[in-house]
Amino acid sequence: MDEFQLINMIKQKYYKQPTLIKGVGDDAAVFHQPNKNIVTAVDTFVENIHFSKETMLPYHFGYRSLAASVSDLAAMGAQPAFYLVSIVVPASKDDEKIKEIFQGMNRFASKYNMDLIGGDTVSGKELTISVTVIGYVQSDYVRYRHVAKDNDVIFVTGTLGNSQAGLYTLQHKLTIENKHYFIKKHRFPNPRVAFSQALTDIKRVSLNDISDGIVNELYEIAEASNVNLLIEDALMPVHKSLAQFTEELTKQWVYFGGEDFELVGTAAETDWETIKRIGKQTNTKVTKIGYVNNNIYEKRGNVYLKINNEVKLLKKEGYIHLK
Amino acid sequence: MDEFQLINMIKQKYYKQPTLIKGVGDDAAVFHQPNKNIVTAVDTFVENIHFSKETMLPYHFGYRSLAASVSDLAAMGAQPAFYLVSIVVPASKDDEKIKEIFQGMNRFASKYNMDLIGGDTVSGKELTISVTVIGYVQSDYVRYRHVAKDNDVIFVTGTLGNSQAGLYTLQHKLTIENKHYFIKKHRFPNPRVAFSQALTDIKRVSLNDISDGIVNELYEIAEASNVNLLIEDALMPVHKSLAQFTEELTKQWVYFGGEDFELVGTAAETDWETIKRIGKQTNTKVTKIGYVNNNIYEKRGNVYLKINNEVKLLKKEGYIHLK
Repeated sequence: MDEFQLINMIKQKYYKQPTLIKGVGDDAAVFHQPNKNIVTAVDTFVENIHFSKETMLPYHFGYRSLAASVSDLAAMGAQPAFYLVSIVVPASKDDEKIKEIFQGMNRFASKYNMDLIGGDTVSGKELTISVTVIGYVQSDYVRYRHVAKDNDVIFVTGTLGNSQAGLYTLQHKLTIENKHYFIKKHRFPNPRVAFSQALTDIKRVSLNDISDGIVNELYEIAEASNVNLLIEDALMPVHKSLAQFTEELTKQWVYFGGEDFELVGTAAETDWETIKRIGKQTNTKVTKIGYVNNNIYEKRGNVYLKINNEVKLLKKEGYIHLK
Repeated sequence: MDEFQLINMIKQKYYKQPTLIKGVGDDAAVFHQPNKNIVTAVDTFVENIHFSKETMLPYHFGYRSLAASVSDLAAMGAQPAFYLVSIVVPASKDDEKIKEIFQGMNRFASKYNMDLIGGDTVSGKELTISVTVIGYVQSDYVRYRHVAKDNDVIFVTGTLGNSQAGLYTLQHKLTIENKHYFIKKHRFPNPRVAFSQALTDIKRVSLNDISDGIVNELYEIAEASNVNLLIEDALMPVHKSLAQFTEELTKQWVYFGGEDFELVGTAAETDWETIKRIGKQTNTKVTKIGYVNNNIYEKRGNVYLKINNEVKLLKKEGYIHLK
């Protein structure tokens, strides 16, 4: 398949976004957005590093690549609008597989009426998918990392560690309770777009998506906001079936596993009831897991964990000592 | 170098674009553009396919990747504003080389006050650079391919075939006249940003940038506009030192070589004087190379070449028979 054929294959018959002026088919795409801020990010995924054919079909590669990229938009409070895809295709991949990748992306895109407005395809040794996403957000509701304040509640959506549990289940060909639930969490992540967009009753929310594990994401908030964060192990939301795995694995996945694409953030304690209401309205589980606490230590920008009645400083890429 | 170190390395100390609200450092970049259309495209470059360390330094990889991407903005009449970079880094590349790639991009970006507002870095087997560019253009001056009309003049900027001559000179280690001119054309392409933006006195211009060879680009205009194009071999602008190479090589480079990142377009004959004036004002050589000519054949969407008093149908990925 040459570039021309690929373009014809992926070109949408019609576009859904009213702000789009020109999609695929010229040197570049054109759109116009006079009212809202424009939010953009790029993510890249390489076969055998970010995904493997042992655990995913090409359709999953596609779905997951776009979902992971859109999670960055959700973390900014933005509504997804467009995506562009660059793909490096090895000679070993037949056209059908490439088509399935785009079908997976298209399946995710259709959930949010996103339009594919550009791309590039080149040959190379390794299957590589690079996704640029573009979204819109009212200027008052952009959700940055740097706005956390002392005494804020820290909250997280969903439950943690499921994606890694799904990957482990696939890699080890396990037969476990709720197997398909965990596998689905790994292959079809569900970024919290509706929840983050519904936060408009709250002025100040710091927000980050969990792509690299919650500890890493909390550090980004702590550093950007120059605060200390204290979370409690007993409060961490975990799916009950995760108890099938060893405590060591579970802890590793919950704190450092990542790829759940849940949101973690902070807001004033007075806004906690509103956050719970928005969670219910958008069918999003929300859990309070701790507080911003600058009294814990003089130096700022750190993340602490209360576990077994002890407070420990967490390391970004770490390991939880159980004893 | 991990992602965190890379981000710190590439993060600009200050940003130049007044429409930017948040650059590198959150989940996504944020900007606001109430007045103009937003233009975006993505291009991907793989080592040993799009560039090779035999003929270019990492600095050139970077410069050329961004220049080639910005050429798509020039072809839309847009002013470059932002870029995002995804890079796949093999273990064999040391940090210094990656730094030089970004320095090359930064050198090009500074010509147009472009800001680097996002990116991703992952490890992989092959050095791969994926560049997303974002630019602005007034809605009346977006330059599409589909607006060519019968009897339009066809024009091209600069001279053709120079980039391929430079590559050939490097590959064959030739010592030729104007060697450095051709090598520079290959390593440091100069997209026609100023020229395309200065066309605002003309309402209707079809425009395409020459990334894949002029014949291919002319076909895109012919098909999108549903017209036939007739160009003349005797009119094609060629640097005088290109005569050092064989006629066969020269013709191949001029018509199918590509990567010159010149612009080819059409406009009403009555606008030709204005185009020449804009060429002079922006220090851009502009040459009339033929006409839109729907009388040449009933079926539309074709490109013809007048050569040696014969009119031949050109093929997209072809070869000029000299006899």
